[in-house]
Amino acid sequence: MAVLLSTLATEIVIPVAAVIGIVFSLVQWFIVSRVKVTPERHAPPPGPNSNKNGFNDYLIEEEEGLHDQNVVAKCAEIQNAISEGATSFLFTEYQYVGVFMVVFAILIFLFLGSVEGFSTKSQPCTYDAQRTCKPALATAIFSTVAFVLGGVTSILSGFLGMKIATYANARTTLEARKGVGKAFIVAFRSGAVMGFLLAANGLLVLYITINVFKVYYGDDWEGLFESITGYGLGGSAMALFGRVGGGIYTKAADVGADLVGKVERNIPEDDPRNPAVIADNVGDNVGDIAGMGSDLFGSYAESSCAALVVASISSFGINHEFTSMLYPLLISSMGILICLITTLFATDFFEIKAVKEIEPALKKQLIISTVLMTVGIAIISWIALPSSFTIYNFGVQKVVKNWQLFLCVAVGLWAGLIIGFVTEYYTSNAYSPVQDVADSCRTGAATNVIFGLALGYKSVIIPIFAIAVSIFVSFSFAAMYGIAVAALGMLSTIATGLAIDAYGPISDNAGGIAEMAGMSHRIRERTDALDAAGNTTAAIGKGFAIGSAALVSLALFGAFVSRAAISTVDVLTPKVFIGLIVGAMLPYWFSAMTMKSVGSAALKMVEEVRRQFNTIPGLMEGTAKPDYATCVKISTDASIKEMIPPGALVILTPLIVGTLFGVETLSGVLAGSLVSGVQVAISASNTGGAWDNAKKYIEAGASEHARTLGPKGSDPHKAAVIGDTIGDPLKDTSGPSLNILIKLMAVESLVFAPFFATHGGLLFKIF
Amino acid sequence: MAVLLSTLATEIVIPVAAVIGIVFSLVQWFIVSRVKVTPERHAPPPGPNSNKNGFNDYLIEEEEGLHDQNVVAKCAEIQNAISEGATSFLFTEYQYVGVFMVVFAILIFLFLGSVEGFSTKSQPCTYDAQRTCKPALATAIFSTVAFVLGGVTSILSGFLGMKIATYANARTTLEARKGVGKAFIVAFRSGAVMGFLLAANGLLVLYITINVFKVYYGDDWEGLFESITGYGLGGSAMALFGRVGGGIYTKAADVGADLVGKVERNIPEDDPRNPAVIADNVGDNVGDIAGMGSDLFGSYAESSCAALVVASISSFGINHEFTSMLYPLLISSMGILICLITTLFATDFFEIKAVKEIEPALKKQLIISTVLMTVGIAIISWIALPSSFTIYNFGVQKVVKNWQLFLCVAVGLWAGLIIGFVTEYYTSNAYSPVQDVADSCRTGAATNVIFGLALGYKSVIIPIFAIAVSIFVSFSFAAMYGIAVAALGMLSTIATGLAIDAYGPISDNAGGIAEMAGMSHRIRERTDALDAAGNTTAAIGKGFAIGSAALVSLALFGAFVSRAAISTVDVLTPKVFIGLIVGAMLPYWFSAMTMKSVGSAALKMVEEVRRQFNTIPGLMEGTAKPDYATCVKISTDASIKEMIPPGALVILTPLIVGTLFGVETLSGVLAGSLVSGVQVAISASNTGGAWDNAKKYIEAGASEHARTLGPKGSDPHKAAVIGDTIGDPLKDTSGPSLNILIKLMAVESLVFAPFFATHGGLLFKIF
Repeated sequence: MAVLLSTLATEIVIPVAAVIGIVFSLVQWFIVSRVKVTPERHAPPPGPNSNKNGFNDYLIEEEEGLHDQNVVAKCAEIQNAISEGATSFLFTEYQYVGVFMVVFAILIFLFLGSVEGFSTKSQPCTYDAQRTCKPALATAIFSTVAFVLGGVTSILSGFLGMKIATYANARTTLEARKGVGKAFIVAFRSGAVMGFLLAANGLLVLYITINVFKVYYGDDWEGLFESITGYGLGGSAMALFGRVGGGIYTKAADVGADLVGKVERNIPEDDPRNPAVIADNVGDNVGDIAGMGSDLFGSYAESSCAALVVASISSFGINHEFTSMLYPLLISSMGILICLITTLFATDFFEIKAVKEIEPALKKQLIISTVLMTVGIAIISWIALPSSFTIYNFGVQKVVKNWQLFLCVAVGLWAGLIIGFVTEYYTSNAYSPVQDVADSCRTGAATNVIFGLALGYKSVIIPIFAIAVSIFVSFSFAAMYGIAVAALGMLSTIATGLAIDAYGPISDNAGGIAEMAGMSHRIRERTDALDAAGNTTAAIGKGFAIGSAALVSLALFGAFVSRAAISTVDVLTPKVFIGLIVGAMLPYWFSAMTMKSVGSAALKMVEEVRRQFNTIPGLMEGTAKPDYATCVKISTDASIKEMIPPGALVILTPLIVGTLFGVETLSGVLAGSLVSGVQVAISASNTGGAWDNAKKYIEAGASEHARTLGPKGSDPHKAAVIGDTIGDPLKDTSGPSLNILIKLMAVESLVFAPFFATHGGLLFKIF
Repeated sequence: MAVLLSTLATEIVIPVAAVIGIVFSLVQWFIVSRVKVTPERHAPPPGPNSNKNGFNDYLIEEEEGLHDQNVVAKCAEIQNAISEGATSFLFTEYQYVGVFMVVFAILIFLFLGSVEGFSTKSQPCTYDAQRTCKPALATAIFSTVAFVLGGVTSILSGFLGMKIATYANARTTLEARKGVGKAFIVAFRSGAVMGFLLAANGLLVLYITINVFKVYYGDDWEGLFESITGYGLGGSAMALFGRVGGGIYTKAADVGADLVGKVERNIPEDDPRNPAVIADNVGDNVGDIAGMGSDLFGSYAESSCAALVVASISSFGINHEFTSMLYPLLISSMGILICLITTLFATDFFEIKAVKEIEPALKKQLIISTVLMTVGIAIISWIALPSSFTIYNFGVQKVVKNWQLFLCVAVGLWAGLIIGFVTEYYTSNAYSPVQDVADSCRTGAATNVIFGLALGYKSVIIPIFAIAVSIFVSFSFAAMYGIAVAALGMLSTIATGLAIDAYGPISDNAGGIAEMAGMSHRIRERTDALDAAGNTTAAIGKGFAIGSAALVSLALFGAFVSRAAISTVDVLTPKVFIGLIVGAMLPYWFSAMTMKSVGSAALKMVEEVRRQFNTIPGLMEGTAKPDYATCVKISTDASIKEMIPPGALVILTPLIVGTLFGVETLSGVLAGSLVSGVQVAISASNTGGAWDNAKKYIEAGASEHARTLGPKGSDPHKAAVIGDTIGDPLKDTSGPSLNILIKLMAVESLVFAPFFATHGGLLFKIF
C-alpha cells in the first residue's frame, strides 16, 4: 500500500528541512552579530535620530551609558576571557575524548567483529532467515564508522553552542543598557542559534549517513539500521564527557567562587576581584550549554536509532517502504519547521516590554510549539504512513494503525509539556512550593534543606505519572517502536526547548559581565530578571532531558532485548532480580562519585582563591588583578580527572555485566537503573532549582512576603545561600549526569548485544 | 523420609525456647530493677563496705554524688515524666490503631470472603486439585483473626520495649555515677529485655496460632498457612503506626527543641529550661524503641509467614512433614538460645572498663552471635530437614538439598553482618568517612551537606551487593522459600540486634536525664560516650532492618505472585513496566510526605517553645518551670495527624492498583518500590547517622584533627549542627519508614492476592 509521500519527496523534504534550520540559525546569528562589542572610534553625538548600535527604532526603556566606550571595551575583554577559557577547556577535553573514541571504536569493532569470528561471508538474516544479510564484520565496521560520526556531530553541536553563547553574552549585557526587552531578544536569538543548529545538524548527518551506508547495504536494511545504532552510541558517549566533565567544571568553579567570595570575603557574586569568577562564567558555557547540547543531541540520536532499528525488522523494513521507514526523520524535519514558526512568536510577532513578561513569553514558546507540533505530527502520520502496518514486538509482528502511531508521538510530546509545566511549578518562585522553601529559611539552613529535599521528592510524582502514561499508551499501541517515537515526539520541539534552555546561561553570563565591567546597578537588575527566568527554563530543560532520557532508554532497552533474542525479562528469576536491584543502586553510586568530585574540585578552587587573596597585594582593594587563568586551569584539570571514575562506571558496567553475567542480568541492570535513576535525576535537579530561586526570591524582594525574609545578608538569606550552594552540584552535575548513565548503558548494551548474546554470561557458563 | 527431630520434639522445643527467652528477659529486667530510683530515706554512711544501691563490689571508676538523694529524686521525677509522655502518646496512637484495625479487619474479611462469594462449601485446593480444601470464607475469617493477633503482638512488643526503656533510662544515669561500665551494663541489659521479649513473644504467639488454627484446618495446610499470612500483615500494619507515627513524633520534638534551644536561645541540648525537652526524650522511646521494635517484629512475622506459605505448597506441606514445615520457627528458637549465650559475653563473661571498649564490645556481640548462629543453623538444618525435598517454584517443584537450605539461611545471616559492618564504617566517627564529613564543615554547612549526601549514596553500594548475593544464592537454591529463610537468617539474631539497638536511645535518654537533673559534667561525658556508640548501633540496627525488609518483601512478593497465579513478571510488558516505574517513585512520594510532616510538626513545636520562652517569666533564668505537657501534646497530635497521608499512601496503593490495574501492574509496583526504596532508605539513614556522629566527633575533640574543628560553638561545629538537624528526619523518620512501605505493600498484596486475581484489573477489563 503506497503512502502519500513518495520516496523521492522524502529524499528531498528531509535535507531541505535541515538546511532551512541551518539557514535560520545563521540568520539569527547574523542579527545577534549586529550588536557591536568593539568600541566605536568616533562616537556619534547623542540624538534621537542617530543610529544606535544598528538599531533605528526608538527604545522602550530609558537608555543609559550607551556611549561609554570603556564599558564596551571591558565587556569585549571579559567576553574574550570567557570564550578563551571555554575553548581551552573544550580542547583539553577533546584530547581525552579523542583517545577515548579511538579506544572505544576499536572495542566496538573487535566485539562486534568477533560475533561471527571476523568472517567476511554473508549470512542469513536474524529476523528473516530466508534473506541473506551482510556479514557481521560489515556491521562491525559500519557501526564503528557511525559511532565516530555520532561522536563528531555531538562535539560539533556542543562546540558551536558554546561559541554562540560566549559570542552572545556580552552582547546581551550591552543590549541590557537599552532595556530588558532588547537584552531578552539577543539572549533568546542566541539560544535559537544553538537549538536550530543542533537539531538540523543532527538530522542532516543522520540522513546522509543512512543514504551513504545504503549504497553498501542495498536491500539489507536489517544490517543497515543495526549499524546506524552506532550513531546513537557516539552521540551519547560524547554526552558523557559534556555532561559529567562539564558539570563538574561548572560547579567546582561556582561553589569554589561562592565559598570564598560570598562567604569568607563578603564580596558579591561575579565580583571581578574574585579569581574564580571567569572560571565560574566559563562553567556556565561548558556545563549548561555544551553539556546540555550534547545530552539532548544524544537523546535525539538514540531515539531516532532505536526507532529505526525496530522499524527495520517491522513491515516498513521488510517491505522496504522508504518513506515510512524514515518516519522518525520526517517527524524531526517537521519539528524544525514548527519551531521556526514558534521562534518568530518570541522574536518578531510580539515584544517583551517588562520583566514580568519574560517567563510567560518563554512558557508560551512551549505551548505554541506543542500545539502546532501536534498538527504537524498528524500531517506526517497521515502522509508518511500506510493506514495499517506491522511492528516487531519481541518475536511477533503486531498490527498498528497510523492514528495509533500518531497518538504515540503525540503522547510523548504532551508528556514533555506536562513535565515542563510541573518543573516550572516546582522551581519558579512565582508559585507556593519555592515560596514555602524560602519561608522555611526563617528557622535556618536546616529547615531550608529539609523542605527543599521534600520539594524535590514531591516534584517527581506527576512527571513519573506522565512518563508512565506515555509508556503505557505507546507501548500498548506500538511496542518498542511506540516508545521510541514517543521519545522523538518529546524531542520534536528540541530546537525551541534548547533555545529557551540556552537562554538561561547566556543571561547568567550577561549578568556576570555587567558586574565585572562595573556597569550600573540597573543593568544588573535587568540581567538578574532575565537570569531568574533562566533558572526556571534551565530546570524545564532538565525536565525534558530526563523525561526523554527515560523514554529513550526504555526504547533502547527494548531494542537491546530484541537484538539479544531474549523473549521475556522476568523479574522473578534470580539473574534478572539481582540485576534490577544492583541497577537501581547505580544512580546512587554514580551520584556519590559526581558529588564528591564537585566537592573535592571545589575545595581545590577554594585553596587557590584563598591563596590569591592572601598573596596578591591590593586584590581586595581592586588595585591589582587576580590570576584568572590559574583558576580556569584548576577547574579544567579537576573536571577531566574527576570525571574518569563516574565515566568508567557507566562505560564498564554493561561490558562487565554482559560479559560475565549475560543478557538477562544486564536487562535487569538496565531496567533497575532506568526506574531508579529517573527519580534521583528529577528530584535532584528540581531541588537545586528550587533552592536557587528561593534565594533569588529573597534577594529580589518583589512581594511583601519576600521582603520580610530579606534583604541580602539577613539570616534567612544566609540560610538560602547555603541551600543554593548545596543545590549547585545536585542540579547541574549529579542530577543531569544521570541521563547519561541511563541512556549510555542502554545504547551500549544495544550495540554490543550480538556479542553478549553469543559470548556473554561467562560466569554462569563456568559454574 | 523421616527427619531426626520428631514431631513431638518439635512441639516441645519451640515453646520451650520461647519460654526460655521470656524468662531470660525477665531475669535481666529484675537485675536492672535492683538499681533503685527511689531516694533512700536513711542514707547509709559512706564507706567501702557499705551496700551501695544493691552492688557489693568495688567500683571501677571514681564514684561521685552517690548519696545525693536529691539527684535520685529528680531523676525519678524526670523518668516518670518521660514514661508518662510515652505512655500517653502510645495510648492515643492505640485509639487510632484500634479504629484502623477494626476497619482493616472488616476489609480483609470482605475482600477475601468475596473471592468465592462468601460460600461455606469446601473447594478443591489451588495447588493440588485432588484434595479438598476449606472454603475461602474460612480463609477470610482466620486471616482476619491472624491479622488481629499479629497486630496485638506487635503492639505488645512495642509497648513493653518502651516500658523497659523508660524504666531503664534513669537507672542508667544513676549508674553512670559509678562509672561508664556500670551504666553500659544497665543500658545493655535493658536492651536485651526488649530484644528477648520481642523475639520470644513473636515466636510463641505464632506457634500457638498455628496449633490452634490446625484444630480447624486439619490436613488442609494450604489453607492453614494462607490464613497465617494475616499474622504478618497485622504485625506490619502496626509497624506503620510505630515507625511513621513514632518517627514523626521523635523528630518533630527533636528538631523543634534544637531549633529554638540550641540555635536561638543558645542553651545546651536537653537543658531542662527547654519546654520541648521532655517531648524530645519521649520521642526517643516511641520512635527508636517502640517503632524499631514493631518494624523488626513485622519483618520477623512476615518472613516466617512467607516461608510457611511457600512451604505449605512444597513437599513439606504436601507430605505433612510437621518438623520440616516448622523449620522457620526452629531457626528462630535456635536464634533465641544463641543470642542468650551471646548476651552473656557482654554482661557476664567480660566487663567494660573504658569508653573506648564500648563500640568493640557491641561489635563483638554481632560477630559472636553470627558465628554461633551459623553452627546453630547447621544443626537445625541437619536435624529438621530431610536430605532432599522439593520447594514450590512458580508452578513447578524444585528439588532442594538440606545443605542448600543451610546455605540460604547462612547467606542471609552473614549478609546481615556485612551490612552491619559497612553501616558502622560509614556512620562511626572512628573511620575516615565521617571524619571527612566533619572536615568538610570547615568550609561551612553547604559542603557538609554535599559530602554527607555523597557519603549516604556511597554507603549503599556494598549492602546492595550483599543483598544481591544473598538473593542470588537463596533464590537459585530454593526459590522464594530460599529468600524467605535468608531473611529469617538475617533476623535470627534479632534478640541481640535489638538489644544493641535499643541500647542507643536508652543511653541517649540517660544523657538527657543527667543534664536535666543537673548532674555533673563528668556524668554527662560518660553518657555521651555511651550515646555516640549508640548512634552507630542505631545505624547498624537500621541497616539490619532495611536489609531484612528487602529480603522479606521479595519473599512476600514471590508468595504473592504464586498465590495470584501469575507465571512471569515480564518487565517488557506495558502493564508491568508502568508499575515498575511508578513503584520506584513511591519511596520519593512517601519520603516527601514524611519529611514535610516532620518539618511542619517541628515548626509548630518551634512556635510553642518560643511562646513559652516569651510568656513564662523566669524561664530562661531557670526560676520558672516550662510547660512540658503542652509540647508533648503538640508532638502527639501532630504525629497522629501527619501520619495519615503517608499511611494512606502505603495502605491504599496495593488496593487501588490491584483492583483497578490488576496483579501484573501490582507486581511491577512491588518490584519497583522494593529496588528503589531500599536505596533511599539506606542512604537516608546512613547520611543522617554520619552527620550526627560528625557533630559528636567535633564536640568530643578526641583527636588532634577533631580539636582543629572544635570546640562547641566554633564555625565548623555550627555547620555540623545544621547537618545533624537535616539528618534527623532522614535517619529517624523518612529512611526507616520506607521499610514499612516496602514490606507492608508486599504483605498486603499477598493477603489480598486471591481477590485481585479474581476481581482485579477493573480498568483493563472495562477498556
